[in-house]
Amino acid sequence: MSKIIDFQINPTKYRHWRVEYNDRIATLFMDVDEEGGLFDGYQLKLNSYDLGVDIELADIVQRMRFEHPEVKAVIMRSGKDNVFCAGANIRMLGGAEHAHKVNFCRFTNETRNTYENAGEDSGQQYICAIKGSCAGGGYELALACNHIILTDDGSSNVSLPEVPLLAVLPGTGGLTRVTDKRKIRRDRADVFCSTEEGARGKKALDWGLVDELVANSKFDEVVAKRAGEFADLSKTQENANGITLEPLKREIGSDGSLTYSAVEVSIDQDAGTATISITGPQDAAPQNIDALRGEGAQTWMLRAARELDDAILHLRFNQTELGVVVFKCSGDPTQVLAHERLLLENKQDWFANEILLYWKRILKRIDLTSRSLVALIEPGSCFAGVLSEILFAVDRSYMADGEFEGDNRPVATITLSESNFGLCPMSNNLTRLETRFLEDQDSLAAAKSAIGKSLEAEDANDLGLVTFALDDLDWDDDVRVFLEERASYSPDALTAMEANLRFAGPETMETRIFGRLTAWQNWVFQRPNAVGEEGALQRYGSGIRGKYDKRRV
Amino acid sequence: MSKIIDFQINPTKYRHWRVEYNDRIATLFMDVDEEGGLFDGYQLKLNSYDLGVDIELADIVQRMRFEHPEVKAVIMRSGKDNVFCAGANIRMLGGAEHAHKVNFCRFTNETRNTYENAGEDSGQQYICAIKGSCAGGGYELALACNHIILTDDGSSNVSLPEVPLLAVLPGTGGLTRVTDKRKIRRDRADVFCSTEEGARGKKALDWGLVDELVANSKFDEVVAKRAGEFADLSKTQENANGITLEPLKREIGSDGSLTYSAVEVSIDQDAGTATISITGPQDAAPQNIDALRGEGAQTWMLRAARELDDAILHLRFNQTELGVVVFKCSGDPTQVLAHERLLLENKQDWFANEILLYWKRILKRIDLTSRSLVALIEPGSCFAGVLSEILFAVDRSYMADGEFEGDNRPVATITLSESNFGLCPMSNNLTRLETRFLEDQDSLAAAKSAIGKSLEAEDANDLGLVTFALDDLDWDDDVRVFLEERASYSPDALTAMEANLRFAGPETMETRIFGRLTAWQNWVFQRPNAVGEEGALQRYGSGIRGKYDKRRV
Repeated sequence: MSKIIDFQINPTKYRHWRVEYNDRIATLFMDVDEEGGLFDGYQLKLNSYDLGVDIELADIVQRMRFEHPEVKAVIMRSGKDNVFCAGANIRMLGGAEHAHKVNFCRFTNETRNTYENAGEDSGQQYICAIKGSCAGGGYELALACNHIILTDDGSSNVSLPEVPLLAVLPGTGGLTRVTDKRKIRRDRADVFCSTEEGARGKKALDWGLVDELVANSKFDEVVAKRAGEFADLSKTQENANGITLEPLKREIGSDGSLTYSAVEVSIDQDAGTATISITGPQDAAPQNIDALRGEGAQTWMLRAARELDDAILHLRFNQTELGVVVFKCSGDPTQVLAHERLLLENKQDWFANEILLYWKRILKRIDLTSRSLVALIEPGSCFAGVLSEILFAVDRSYMADGEFEGDNRPVATITLSESNFGLCPMSNNLTRLETRFLEDQDSLAAAKSAIGKSLEAEDANDLGLVTFALDDLDWDDDVRVFLEERASYSPDALTAMEANLRFAGPETMETRIFGRLTAWQNWVFQRPNAVGEEGALQRYGSGIRGKYDKRRV
Repeated sequence: MSKIIDFQINPTKYRHWRVEYNDRIATLFMDVDEEGGLFDGYQLKLNSYDLGVDIELADIVQRMRFEHPEVKAVIMRSGKDNVFCAGANIRMLGGAEHAHKVNFCRFTNETRNTYENAGEDSGQQYICAIKGSCAGGGYELALACNHIILTDDGSSNVSLPEVPLLAVLPGTGGLTRVTDKRKIRRDRADVFCSTEEGARGKKALDWGLVDELVANSKFDEVVAKRAGEFADLSKTQENANGITLEPLKREIGSDGSLTYSAVEVSIDQDAGTATISITGPQDAAPQNIDALRGEGAQTWMLRAARELDDAILHLRFNQTELGVVVFKCSGDPTQVLAHERLLLENKQDWFANEILLYWKRILKRIDLTSRSLVALIEPGSCFAGVLSEILFAVDRSYMADGEFEGDNRPVATITLSESNFGLCPMSNNLTRLETRFLEDQDSLAAAKSAIGKSLEAEDANDLGLVTFALDDLDWDDDVRVFLEERASYSPDALTAMEANLRFAGPETMETRIFGRLTAWQNWVFQRPNAVGEEGALQRYGSGIRGKYDKRRV
């Protein structure tokens, strides 16, 4: 798996999904091309999926929000007869390296969360219409929808057969959504999740595994009716006209570096670091919402977001040996705040709102990136508003204190805005500053009262906004020693430590999926009973069951 | 590690701890015998610990509550000069099998939780008095105390050096308590947990790692004073006289079976099952609290609890190939309820209260036992009150419906009592019925209105209290098929599935420790960077650092 995995795609290239737009209702057909696997060595039979299928889905969900804001309900269904979706492709999983499996699950989970939240965030409700077998990852696609309709044809069913069949977990949120979203009684969840054949018909409805059971003859009619009803409930802007998400401009250097328009990524393989540098806006903020719409996908707040998102996904999958991601930025903080302010003042406008929601998603993606994350707040930087939110997503931050000899850029500052106080909740549903100052209301209030102030290092440090403030005598050595030290530690221990320290405070379905469920799945993904030569994943399809070491740990 | 690990111990056998009782204050000296390791191959240097050390600590904490209810504050300190505790013994961890490491961490976590809760539950506050180096598991011992005092001698320190030094996590609650209990800012937690030398003096205090910093010359004086103050705050019964926890009567059969007075454990190695059978009280309940005290540790509610606790711990460590634990009971449900009622009506009495608190702890221990748990509610059983709580701890239950041919025992029933509605919260701080009926208030209310009713299978099933009600035509086959099926699945996948399904609803520090932190630690405990030949655990003490695969997953 050494080819570059590219997250940039557009509808002309889809091989696995079709979308039909019909005014307020979009229908999403999953129709996976068996021969269209991202890697060699497996066929995507029975609408099973790999990362390539999910990259298309993520693209559709994203374009639905920016290019098709008129859509208020999305029907997800199968483009094949007799099968809805067989879940993640087993041969792909069997052949994939541990790191790819883990990264694959994280990305699919993020995509599930994105369309699950599209109803509340953007007024786009996802409805799953199931005909045929809906198994494993297929049922997890359904579980993330807002409403599940199952046909009552005597054979169509839902199931989570991973444990009995494959010796792994339903790892894309299945176990968590069964108990915490659908509130299925835990002993019934135990029965359901340890039964290969799952449930169909009345039992699936009675146990709460689906929301609605419909006679096969009435299926299309009811699905259409329900979609109309969900669309009626949507409170988002009517008659919105989307913008176009043009292809990103990106150059990949021979050393792995990435150059976009507002984002650059430099790579230091020896040091094990990737440095993401964001350039603030070069042009003045659009004057009003019409001007914003005129700029479309080229407006700085959206362009930088798309580029940052792509850079992070690229690093996750294509640069697995870089353990540390360094965030920097440069530019004029007042310009960043001006661009942001236009959006904040026009949140009722679908486009302004979607750009802000996109930043919320990207910041969550940063939280969930299993690299050591550090921010360097250097002279000339523009950590302001939503950009300063990055400082509270990283594991630690270093801020340059005062003037640096021979550096004529402006002294480093941080400027908070209202976007640091509610706009971008983490997976735990707290803001990053609430998580940072857990139950310390005084510190939180002090930070809030500093909104709009250009904070130099001493003030930022006093407010608890940075980890270290360093003058130019200490800066180079301290930062270098930290980066060297971090690179010398076990990546696994760091991944696990960071996963524990980043999400203090309350837990939500999302943190349970990424914390508890993912950690257990990662554990299982290493166990010989799953991935060993005689394990279930390797033996799948051979007709021989996996051979298990019976010891419980 | 094939010798039997025995959790029964008493003060005459302690090798690693000393306790001095002085009226309301007990002082607990950790003074580990280097040569007293539970297994061969390592020395317990620098007050490092293994399971044997923790078994003694668990015994002390338990006896403190039953034998020394007069104690209101417990000082935990080191019996050695220059070192408080170096944490879990690294050579022991390096040599232990994966299953032992996981079981060891779970038991130590349970013990930490037990004394952490002793303040709130029993009015026994634990105070940690640190002189010398307090590292890793040593600092985790301290973190679970209610108050941490550090001497300011210029060298005594606290640290969590696991990640930089050993490539594993501070897995006994350290990462969770640092952020969630002590509310240390997450970037500072990142710095602290990736620094071998930890923190001492003013920094330890300023960062919130300790509660109090005391000049070395005043240390003993301040510790004694603080203990007195905590004791003054205790609201529990004055002048209580403890009872004696006599040694349990236990026979271990050649087939591994266990026979106690009120508990039996039969083993079926081929089927992979252990069956725990609890016998209800043979004698009438004590008439009053004096009679209860007269029975002491022999009173049925305490005797059965101690035997059940020992049986579960024995199975966890000594029978790792048995994947399923079956719970049964037999006896007169009205007798069970009578014994329980005396305790419920005398909760203000320290002894009655402690017996009930012990059941709370045991039920949590059952929740956290990583085997498939099933209850069989057969004719003649006595699942009533706190015994019926077992039905809501297990993964699923089968109830005999009506009379069984040729079986003249009474028809199977379940009787709920007030103890099912608040007395025994799970780690998620909900009762098991609240977790079962998550947000389904109607079902919870219906169950509550059935308190005291002798519920036969149909009623129990209608109320959602059992998974399946089966008549005698189906019973044998259905139960057999289930047990066979369960035994055929991968133990790892089941462990992980059960860990996800058992704890729906809110999360607490406890569930985060056992869910998120433990899962990540288990993952790390399998990674070559920690446990491989060139991993940090194997290389520890060799002078050569671990060699790490740098890929992040």
